[in-house]
Amino acid sequence: MATSSGRHFLQIPGPTNVPDEVLRAMAAPTIDHRGPEFSALVHGLLEDVKPVFGTEQPVVVYPSSGTGAWEAALVNTLSPGDRVLCFETGHFATLWQEMAARLGLVVDFVPGDWRHGVDPDEVEARLAADTGHEIKAVCVVHNETSTGVASRIGEIRRAIDAAGHPALYLVDTISSLGCIDYRHDEWGVDVTVSCSQKGLMLPPGLGFNAVSPKALRASETAGLPRSFFDWAPILRANEQGSYPYTSATNLLYGLREALRILYAEGLPHVYARHARHAAATRAAVGAWGLEVLCLDEREHSGALTAVLLPEEHDADHVRRVILERFDMSLGAGLGRLAGRVFRIGHLGHLGDLTLAGTIAGVQMGLGLAGVKVDPGGITAALDHLGQA
Amino acid sequence: MATSSGRHFLQIPGPTNVPDEVLRAMAAPTIDHRGPEFSALVHGLLEDVKPVFGTEQPVVVYPSSGTGAWEAALVNTLSPGDRVLCFETGHFATLWQEMAARLGLVVDFVPGDWRHGVDPDEVEARLAADTGHEIKAVCVVHNETSTGVASRIGEIRRAIDAAGHPALYLVDTISSLGCIDYRHDEWGVDVTVSCSQKGLMLPPGLGFNAVSPKALRASETAGLPRSFFDWAPILRANEQGSYPYTSATNLLYGLREALRILYAEGLPHVYARHARHAAATRAAVGAWGLEVLCLDEREHSGALTAVLLPEEHDADHVRRVILERFDMSLGAGLGRLAGRVFRIGHLGHLGDLTLAGTIAGVQMGLGLAGVKVDPGGITAALDHLGQA
Amino acid sequence: MATSSGRHFLQIPGPTNVPDEVLRAMAAPTIDHRGPEFSALVHGLLEDVKPVFGTEQPVVVYPSSGTGAWEAALVNTLSPGDRVLCFETGHFATLWQEMAARLGLVVDFVPGDWRHGVDPDEVEARLAADTGHEIKAVCVVHNETSTGVASRIGEIRRAIDAAGHPALYLVDTISSLGCIDYRHDEWGVDVTVSCSQKGLMLPPGLGFNAVSPKALRASETAGLPRSFFDWAPILRANEQGSYPYTSATNLLYGLREALRILYAEGLPHVYARHARHAAATRAAVGAWGLEVLCLDEREHSGALTAVLLPEEHDADHVRRVILERFDMSLGAGLGRLAGRVFRIGHLGHLGDLTLAGTIAGVQMGLGLAGVKVDPGGITAALDHLGQA
Amino acid sequence: MATSSGRHFLQIPGPTNVPDEVLRAMAAPTIDHRGPEFSALVHGLLEDVKPVFGTEQPVVVYPSSGTGAWEAALVNTLSPGDRVLCFETGHFATLWQEMAARLGLVVDFVPGDWRHGVDPDEVEARLAADTGHEIKAVCVVHNETSTGVASRIGEIRRAIDAAGHPALYLVDTISSLGCIDYRHDEWGVDVTVSCSQKGLMLPPGLGFNAVSPKALRASETAGLPRSFFDWAPILRANEQGSYPYTSATNLLYGLREALRILYAEGLPHVYARHARHAAATRAAVGAWGLEVLCLDEREHSGALTAVLLPEEHDADHVRRVILERFDMSLGAGLGRLAGRVFRIGHLGHLGDLTLAGTIAGVQMGLGLAGVKVDPGGITAALDHLGQA
Repeated sequence: MATSSGRHFLQIPGPTNVPDEVLRAMAAPTIDHRGPEFSALVHGLLEDVKPVFGTEQPVVVYPSSGTGAWEAALVNTLSPGDRVLCFETGHFATLWQEMAARLGLVVDFVPGDWRHGVDPDEVEARLAADTGHEIKAVCVVHNETSTGVASRIGEIRRAIDAAGHPALYLVDTISSLGCIDYRHDEWGVDVTVSCSQKGLMLPPGLGFNAVSPKALRASETAGLPRSFFDWAPILRANEQGSYPYTSATNLLYGLREALRILYAEGLPHVYARHARHAAATRAAVGAWGLEVLCLDEREHSGALTAVLLPEEHDADHVRRVILERFDMSLGAGLGRLAGRVFRIGHLGHLGDLTLAGTIAGVQMGLGLAGVKVDPGGITAALDHLGQA
Repeated sequence: MATSSGRHFLQIPGPTNVPDEVLRAMAAPTIDHRGPEFSALVHGLLEDVKPVFGTEQPVVVYPSSGTGAWEAALVNTLSPGDRVLCFETGHFATLWQEMAARLGLVVDFVPGDWRHGVDPDEVEARLAADTGHEIKAVCVVHNETSTGVASRIGEIRRAIDAAGHPALYLVDTISSLGCIDYRHDEWGVDVTVSCSQKGLMLPPGLGFNAVSPKALRASETAGLPRSFFDWAPILRANEQGSYPYTSATNLLYGLREALRILYAEGLPHVYARHARHAAATRAAVGAWGLEVLCLDEREHSGALTAVLLPEEHDADHVRRVILERFDMSLGAGLGRLAGRVFRIGHLGHLGDLTLAGTIAGVQMGLGLAGVKVDPGGITAALDHLGQA
Repeated sequence: MATSSGRHFLQIPGPTNVPDEVLRAMAAPTIDHRGPEFSALVHGLLEDVKPVFGTEQPVVVYPSSGTGAWEAALVNTLSPGDRVLCFETGHFATLWQEMAARLGLVVDFVPGDWRHGVDPDEVEARLAADTGHEIKAVCVVHNETSTGVASRIGEIRRAIDAAGHPALYLVDTISSLGCIDYRHDEWGVDVTVSCSQKGLMLPPGLGFNAVSPKALRASETAGLPRSFFDWAPILRANEQGSYPYTSATNLLYGLREALRILYAEGLPHVYARHARHAAATRAAVGAWGLEVLCLDEREHSGALTAVLLPEEHDADHVRRVILERFDMSLGAGLGRLAGRVFRIGHLGHLGDLTLAGTIAGVQMGLGLAGVKVDPGGITAALDHLGQA
Repeated sequence: MATSSGRHFLQIPGPTNVPDEVLRAMAAPTIDHRGPEFSALVHGLLEDVKPVFGTEQPVVVYPSSGTGAWEAALVNTLSPGDRVLCFETGHFATLWQEMAARLGLVVDFVPGDWRHGVDPDEVEARLAADTGHEIKAVCVVHNETSTGVASRIGEIRRAIDAAGHPALYLVDTISSLGCIDYRHDEWGVDVTVSCSQKGLMLPPGLGFNAVSPKALRASETAGLPRSFFDWAPILRANEQGSYPYTSATNLLYGLREALRILYAEGLPHVYARHARHAAATRAAVGAWGLEVLCLDEREHSGALTAVLLPEEHDADHVRRVILERFDMSLGAGLGRLAGRVFRIGHLGHLGDLTLAGTIAGVQMGLGLAGVKVDPGGITAALDHLGQA
C-alpha cells in the first residue's frame, strides 16, 4: 500500500467537499433558538436561500436528510390513494416512488433504461391520456445522482402545460441545486426538493422544500397524516424567525456561509464552472476509450459523470484500488448498475486543479486495476481546462 | 446598556453549551457515507450510545429534531385510531399528544396542573380501568422542560405492571438524557425518545429512539404510514454500518466526542453533578424568597429549575433585562406559564463556577428588573457548591 | 475530588480567554507569505493595530513572546555600556533589567517594595541629577503583572520633561494594552513593548514594539548587535505588506479578528469595563477581610488584582484547591511574593457573569483551604456589578 | 479571469498545507502556561520532537521564525569576532551569513553557482588549511529552499572529521526537516536549525535548535550577547515542563498533532513519499523540455523543484497566470534567480493526487503564459506516481 498523506479526495456525487469557511462557521457556539440573534439568522437565511432555487416563494428548511424532504413534498400535498406519475430514470427515482407507495399513494412508474432522462413527450402523452385528471402529481428527479443524467425540467413543464393537466409538479434537485441552472418559479415547479450536502457545500443534515402557491393550496386539503414535516406550523413560525422545534442551528450557520460563497462566485459562474468540469471529465472518459453512461447529449449532468466499464471489469474493484492507493472516494454503481459503473462527482466546492487531480487518480487507478485505457485522458481534460 | 464581552451564558434548558472539543470534532471534513471509515464510525457509535440510555437494545439515530423522534416513536408502533394515554405535565407533553392526534391516534389526555409529574397511581387506575386493553401506549415525558418537573419513570413502570396492562411504554427523555439517571432496559421502556442538544451537549439536529424488542414486534404490524422514520430499513442498514439515507455525518462526529466526554466523567458523576447544581439553584431561589414551580420534592428536575414570580412581575421582562445587561439567555415560560416563570437551565456541559455566575446574573437581573429579592441567594448557592 | 465539567476558568493575568471567533479565525489555512492576500492582510493589520497603542507611528509585530519584544526595544535603541534607569516595581521589572544587564547595558535599578508603581518624583530627581545625560533610557512597566500595580505613564513623562532630560522612554504594556487607557503618542513614549496574550485576547506568540520617530533615529546609531529583532528590515518590508521572514500568519489572522472585536466594543468601553471589573474584585477582597497588594489608590490595576493572604496561609495551596475543585486557574505569587499572594486576572475577553463566577470560586476556595473570610465578598462584588 | 472555487493550492516550498487536524488542534483554548496541563504538554513534546531530528539530545523550541532559530544557533555558540565558514548555495545561505556578519562574526563565504550543494571536498580543504583552528563553526543549509538543491550533510561531517578540525557544525534544516532523511546525532551536527511551517506541517511561528553536548559546552563561554534566545534558562525551565516566557501555546498544540501524524505515517515512509513526489515532478519537467535548476543527481531536493525557464520567459509572469487562473501559489525565484525560475513545493502534507493537480496546473499555466512545453509532462508524472 502507498502511504497516505494530504487531503482526502472526496469525489463522490455528494456529500461534497465542505469549504473550510463553512466548517469553521459551523463551529460557532449554539445559540438560544428563541432569542433575537436566532431570529435574525432565520429571517436572513429564508430570504438568502431563495435565489439558488430560482424562487421568490417560501422555502421550508428541515433538520433532515434529502429523503425527509422527499417525504415532506408528498405528505404536504397528497392524500391516501392519490395517483402520482413517476419515471424510472435511475436508482433514486426508484426509491422516491417506493416511498410514495409506502406512504399510501398509487404510483404510475414509467420504465426507463437508466441512461436517459424523463422524456417530455412521454409526460405529455401520459397526462393527455389522463382525461379524468386522476394523476395528482408528476414527480421528476432533475439530476439522477445514480446515472449522471439530467432531465429537462423546463421542457417537462411545457409538456404538462401542453397536456392541459392540473397535476402538481414535484422536482428532486438533490444533486443539481447549486450545480445546474434551476428555476423553481419560471418552470412552474410546485415543490422543489433538495438537501444540504451537494451543491450547497454543507454537511448532510438539512432538507429543503421550495413551495409554490399552488402547492400551498394543495396542502390545505392534503390528507396524508403529517406532523414533523407539516409546512403550516413551520411557515407560521418562520414569520417570527423561529421554528416550531429546535432547528439544526449550527448547520444553519453553515448554510449562511455557504450561500455567501455561492453568491460571491455568482450563480451563472457556478453553473458554467460545473458545466466546464463536466465537459473536461467527459473529454477524459472519451480519450480513455470508455463510455459515459448518459446517452443523450442534452442530458449530460453538470454534477457528476457515470463511467461504464467494459463487461469484464468490476467497477467496485477499480474504486477500491483508487481509495486504497490514492485516497480518493468515487461513487459506486447503484441498483442495477452495481459493479458496472463508477461515478465521478465534480460538484460543489471544486477547482480546476482538484478536478485534474481527480482525473489523474482515475486514470492511474484504472491502470492499476487492469483496465486498459489510453493515457491521453488526462491530457484531453487539461486541453479543456486550460483553454485560453 | 452595559458593554458585552466574554462568552455568552446559554442557560436555557437546551440547546446547551457545546464543549469546544465537540465543536472542533464537528468541524472535521465530511466523509463518504458509504465508505469504510463511515462504517466504522457508525458501528462504534451505535454501541457507544447505548449506556447513556441504559440499554443494550438498538438505538435509532435520526437526522431530525426531538419532535421528529416523537413522531418516529408513534408511527413505528401504532395504527390509525389506536388509543394512547397521555398526561398533561406541561407544554411539551401537551405538544406531543397534539402530534399524536394529528397523526390519527385517539388521545386520552389526563389533565394536570403543570407543577407535578405523572402520578403512578393515576396510571395504574387508568390502565386497570381499561379492561379491553384499548390503550395501546402510555406516553410520558420524563423531564418536563417547560416546568422542571421530573416524572418517576421506574414507578410508572411498576404501575403499568400492577395494572397487568400490555400497553407500550413510550418515554420522552429529551431534557433528561445525560442529566438524570435513566434506565431504558431496567424500567421496561419500549421507546425512549431523545435528541442531541441537551444532556448530550451537541448542537440540535439528531433525534433518537431506543427500541425494546416489544416495540420492534409492534412495528411489524403498526399501520401508520411511515417512510423517513421507519425503523426497519435503518436497522437493516445499521448492521452494515450505514444508513438508508445520508446521515448527518458531522453531528455524528460530535456525538462520538460528546459520548467520550460523558463517559470520561462517568454517568454516576454526571447525574450527581446535575443533582448538586439543581439543589444549589433551589437553595438560591429559596433564599431569594421566590418559589420553585415544582411542588413535589420527589420530582425536582436535575436539569432545570423553573422559578415562579410574584403575580405583579413579568418574567419575560426579567429575562430581557438579564439578556441585555448580562448577556445570559434564560428559558421563557411556555404556554400557560408565559410571563409567569423563567427557567434556569443547569444541564449539559456545566461547571460550578458557571453555575455560580448564572445565579449571580439572575440575582442581579431580578434586582435591576425591580423584583425584590434577598441578596443571600448567591451565598446560599455557594454554601451548597462549596461544601467540603 | 469534585467532577469537572464545563469550561475551564482561565483567570490568570494572561494568557487570557481567547474569544471563540479568534480561535476560529486562526484555524484558517495558512497562505503564501509573499502573495497578494498576505500583503493585504499585513497592510490592514499595521494600520488597525495603531489605535490600541494610541499611536500613529509604526508598530513592529514579531513572531515572539513579550520577552522578545523587551529585547527588541533595547537592542534597537541602545549601545553596549549605555546606562538605563529601571524601577523595581515587581517581578517583571526585575526580569527586564536583568535582561538589559545581560545584553551589556548598565542598569540603575531603583529599589521598590512591590506594592507601589514608579514614583514620578523619583524619576524627575534621578534624571535631574544626571546632568551629564548618561542615562540613555528610562524603562517602566506600565502594569506590573506580578503585583497588580499600574504606574502612571503620563505623569512619568511629565517628570522626564520637567528634568529636561533627553533619555528615551521605554514602556512595557504587556498586561495593560487593551485593558487600561494607554497613549503612546500623547505620552511621548519612545518604544511601547507589548504582546498578544493579554488584553489583545490572542494566544501567545506575537510581540510588539510601537516606535517613536526619536526611537527610530536612535536605532540608526544604536550599537547592540541585532538581526532577528532589527526594526529596519522589518519596516522596509512592511511597506510592501511583507516581512523579511515568514511571520506567524495564523496569529495574524487572530489579531485581525481580535482587533475587530476590541474596536466593536470601543476602546473607552473596554477600559471602563476593566476598571469596573477591577473595582468589583477589590470590593470582594475588602469584604472578605483580605488585603489588596497595591497600596496606592491611584495605582490599582484594571487588569488584575493581587490578594495578600495572612502570613499563616500558603497562597499556592489556595490556588491548588481552587484548580482541583473548581477548575479555575489563578496567578501565583512570583519572586519575593511566592506563596504570599494569589492574583486574579480580570482582563481580556471577560463578562460580568464570568467575573462573578470567578469571585465565587475564590470565595469558596478560600473557605475550603481554611482561610477564614467573610462570605459577603461575592455580594459586595455583585452590588458593584449589578448597579443600575 | 476564471472563477475560483475549491481549495487553494499552496505549492510554495513552505509554508505548506497544514492538515485540518492540526488547525483544529490549534483552535483549542489557550491554557495556563504555568499549570500542570501545560507542563505535561511540554514534557511530552520535548521528547516527541526528537525523532524527526534524529536526536536524543535536547531540542529548544522558540516562539520565533526560522531566522530567529538561525540567530539562536549563532549567539549561543559564538563570540564577537569568531570566524565562521559559510557556503553560497543560494539565497538563504547568503542571508544566514549576512546575519552572522551583522552579529559581529567574521564570515568566510565560499562562492557558489546556486545550482550545486556544498562540496565536501571543499569543506575538507578549507578546514585542513585552517591549521590555527580559527574557524569556529561550519554553517551549511541542508536543503536550499531557493534552489531545490540538498547538500550532503553526512558527507560533510566526514569531511570535517577528515580535516581533524574542531569547528562546530551548524545545519539549517528549515525546508528539509520532516521531508528528507536527517540525523542530527549520527551526523554529528552541533546545532540543527529548523522551523514549523515546512515539513512539520504547521503554521509559521516556531523555531527549533537541536543542540549537541559540544554545542552546549560552547554556549558556556560563547560571548555574543543574548537573552531571548539563550538556551540556558530555557533548558532549565524545560526540566519543569515550562518556559522562562509564555510560549506559543496553541502552536505547541499543533506541533503535538503534527508529530502524531508524521509518526503515524512513519518517517521512512514520509521520506520515501517526498522522494517519489520529487522524482515525479522532475519527470514532468524533463518531459516538458524544461530544465531543473539542480545540476547534481545526488543533490536533488525531496522538498521542492526549481524549474529554469528559457531566457525569453519571465517566471514571475508564469506564476501570476497560474495564481489568477488556477488559484495555485508557486515559489518565486529569489535573489539572482528572480524571474528566471519558479519553484514547485512538494513537501509537507501532500498526496499523489494533489501533486498531480499541481503538475497539471503548472503545465496548463505554462501553456497559457506562452511557454511552449510538451504536454507529455503530466503523463510522465502519472507514469511515475501510478507505478504498481
